[in-house]
Amino acid sequence: MTRVVAVTPNPAWDVTYRVDRLVPGESLRVRTATARAGGKGVNVARVARALGHPSLAVSTAGGPLGAAFRDDLAAAGQDALLVPVAGPTRQSVTVVPAAPDGAHPTVLNEPGAALSGAEWAAMLDAVARTAGPGDVVTVSGSLPPGTTQDRFAGLVTAALGTGARVVVDTSGPALRWAAEAGAHLLKPNRAELADAAGLDDPAEAVALLQGLGAGEVVVTDGASGMTAYAPGGGRPRVVARARLTGPPLAGNPTGAGDAATAALAVGLAGPTEPSADRLALAVAVSAAAVLRPVAGDVDPADVAALRARVAVT
Amino acid sequence: MTRVVAVTPNPAWDVTYRVDRLVPGESLRVRTATARAGGKGVNVARVARALGHPSLAVSTAGGPLGAAFRDDLAAAGQDALLVPVAGPTRQSVTVVPAAPDGAHPTVLNEPGAALSGAEWAAMLDAVARTAGPGDVVTVSGSLPPGTTQDRFAGLVTAALGTGARVVVDTSGPALRWAAEAGAHLLKPNRAELADAAGLDDPAEAVALLQGLGAGEVVVTDGASGMTAYAPGGGRPRVVARARLTGPPLAGNPTGAGDAATAALAVGLAGPTEPSADRLALAVAVSAAAVLRPVAGDVDPADVAALRARVAVT
Repeated sequence: MTRVVAVTPNPAWDVTYRVDRLVPGESLRVRTATARAGGKGVNVARVARALGHPSLAVSTAGGPLGAAFRDDLAAAGQDALLVPVAGPTRQSVTVVPAAPDGAHPTVLNEPGAALSGAEWAAMLDAVARTAGPGDVVTVSGSLPPGTTQDRFAGLVTAALGTGARVVVDTSGPALRWAAEAGAHLLKPNRAELADAAGLDDPAEAVALLQGLGAGEVVVTDGASGMTAYAPGGGRPRVVARARLTGPPLAGNPTGAGDAATAALAVGLAGPTEPSADRLALAVAVSAAAVLRPVAGDVDPADVAALRARVAVT
Repeated sequence: MTRVVAVTPNPAWDVTYRVDRLVPGESLRVRTATARAGGKGVNVARVARALGHPSLAVSTAGGPLGAAFRDDLAAAGQDALLVPVAGPTRQSVTVVPAAPDGAHPTVLNEPGAALSGAEWAAMLDAVARTAGPGDVVTVSGSLPPGTTQDRFAGLVTAALGTGARVVVDTSGPALRWAAEAGAHLLKPNRAELADAAGLDDPAEAVALLQGLGAGEVVVTDGASGMTAYAPGGGRPRVVARARLTGPPLAGNPTGAGDAATAALAVGLAGPTEPSADRLALAVAVSAAAVLRPVAGDVDPADVAALRARVAVT
């Protein structure tokens, strides 16, 4: 069976604090603290596995939290190839208030440590050794400080060179770099798309990225759903729009985008399906992720139930 | 030379995040992240040393951050006796906004892990083995979850049993427990004093704690200064009040209370001084701590300059 090789260039040790309320300037007691190996690509690997698809997490690990990161993936039974690096694995702190009024969590993202040239090359090598035709390589999340276009393009090119399909979920200039490097599928959210292209109109922004070299583009827009644009030049063609109908979901939106990436990757790896079905599955998986308390998890039963609520146009 | 043996029953790995601003519900980029071994007693040990007084940090260390904690104290050249424990050393996250308008930092305090009976006993043993007559044992900060009065009293009693002077800076019921166990000096801030005694009037609250068995009580009140109450029964007698005169200090108030504890401990360990002078030094050291960017640090030159600004009545 083919595999999702999920690359996280800038992994994080994800810490979640539940507090009564978050008031800036106050000293707060954390009610419960939980922690696990995170980063967007790690979430992709976990969700692909929860969907019954083999996955391999490729990333780096360094410092005290790098050891915890490695141990946590091993304890979870997640296949992983973690390049040992000198810089410490960063942490990301999510503060969840107990307020019942749907207050959003606050997330504190550390920038992470820069990688040496040799460390970056080792990560590329890990992808080259583990991916192959029929596999899907996903590249997710932010990049370590100081990552150049050359380096990032080298990663996408190495992934393409294995014969795998390549999906990129990132933001800022790296989204344009992924397009130029010829990634098969980009999955920005609407704000990331506008920011990367410098254009507010989604179709115009997609046209710009496809003009640079991107294939399919799937644009997510929170509860408003997702739009898939077919690969090809000129004015982008909408393959499908899909959104969840019915009452809005209450839960944890962190990781919903990663779940969508995992679903798209699984769709690209399996037998060729019409893109509208693939998009509908991505919406259902993304919604199922909202129902789980931690990022990087879905319940297949939720996916099945929510799939029936997805409207495709 | 005598020594300050600074006990931290519930140590923390102190992480400081500088952000542009902290807005609840947003995802924030941390501009810089720094981390060091912390906890109130560790700050006391560091400040005593900065004041030229030998100190030993006694605490626990466990889990990935426990290893970082141990390494950090060793790298700083701080003498330490850290009991290995099964539970992971907690972290405390301080978020400092860049806003120039003196916005206060937000602090997220994890509760920490409970200690086993054997682990608690090993910490007592560490105190018993390292402190002696002429030394000062300080016990600072919160207690691990599940710490009983029996356990805490055992720690204070073990410290008293060495012949050392014993200073306790804690809050909640533990402040009453310290009084009952006969600590020589308590250093609550005004809110902690009122909370522990259930009495708003400081003199009445001090009388209650001294009635339980406490010796001297030094009450801190931020920029309003400090008040020292002499040991003894009946209506408490004010030895001195001391406060900083001149323009208010801008800086980082975290750790100012620990600096005061360190100064009081150094005063108790040295040749007997009039308490008014000791209190004035505590105010100057506490103010000097505000001028330093991290908790657990003072510059002796700042202490000398600020000492001249302390008014004693």
